[in-house]
Amino acid sequence: MPQELYFEDFYVGQKFHSIGGAKVTAEEIKEFGQKYDPQPFHLDEAAGEGSFFKGLAASGWLTAAIVMRLRVQNITVAGGMIGAGVEEMRWTLPVRPGDTIHTEIEVVGVRQSTSRKNYGVVRTRTLAFNQNNEVVLRSTVNFLAPLREE
Amino acid sequence: MPQELYFEDFYVGQKFHSIGGAKVTAEEIKEFGQKYDPQPFHLDEAAGEGSFFKGLAASGWLTAAIVMRLRVQNITVAGGMIGAGVEEMRWTLPVRPGDTIHTEIEVVGVRQSTSRKNYGVVRTRTLAFNQNNEVVLRSTVNFLAPLREE
Repeated sequence: MPQELYFEDFYVGQKFHSIGGAKVTAEEIKEFGQKYDPQPFHLDEAAGEGSFFKGLAASGWLTAAIVMRLRVQNITVAGGMIGAGVEEMRWTLPVRPGDTIHTEIEVVGVRQSTSRKNYGVVRTRTLAFNQNNEVVLRSTVNFLAPLREE
Repeated sequence: MPQELYFEDFYVGQKFHSIGGAKVTAEEIKEFGQKYDPQPFHLDEAAGEGSFFKGLAASGWLTAAIVMRLRVQNITVAGGMIGAGVEEMRWTLPVRPGDTIHTEIEVVGVRQSTSRKNYGVVRTRTLAFNQNNEVVLRSTVNFLAPLREE
């Protein structure tokens, strides 16, 4: 069992590297596309060829969802990771069938919550890379972590 | 067929209201949770009861994905809607099984792209509501739209 982390366990400069990676398949790209982002370049190779992406590409929201999975697999917050908002998210390169995504998450801020007295807010910068170590997504995301009970 | 929109068709103050809504089921919450956000409160009613959310709740990334579907269903950009980054996204209330989500999207900025000469950037504010007209998500998102060929 991984160690459950409380607010006091986080510090600026702390880094979390994903263990292993997430392989993205054409099937997953199309399934997610059909459900949540039904545009030709997320649904079909041939239709993708004639598009902006010049081929099948993952919805940016699929990439974001995969990054969330890597995040919860690699940072075990006591009671669960509760999102406290996205400050920025950029898709810097298309994610293609066969790509394998890994992440590097750095804590860039810690502060007590003003609205929830038993929680702190952890601010993180995430870089998601493909198998060639090219950045495909970068984001600044906040989550809540409970204060350790005295 | 909805009209295909080019950059020149967008203007500050323009609003797009989603037609119909997106019903969120417990099954979809759990399926998305298992795949992308495997935390107890996204997987199981009973486990959710004892959590921050006090019940089963949708992953914020599922809500974001549903909002993307409503977005592409209601704004038909010529050549497809290409995301150009998220400036902010906040989850303001949990989304529960049985909720129906609808959106209001307002154009808050239009500018030519500096890096892609045939495109403009459309800046939008999105509010996503549940069936009680409570805001569950708000975001500021940019997308590309092609310039109309002269």
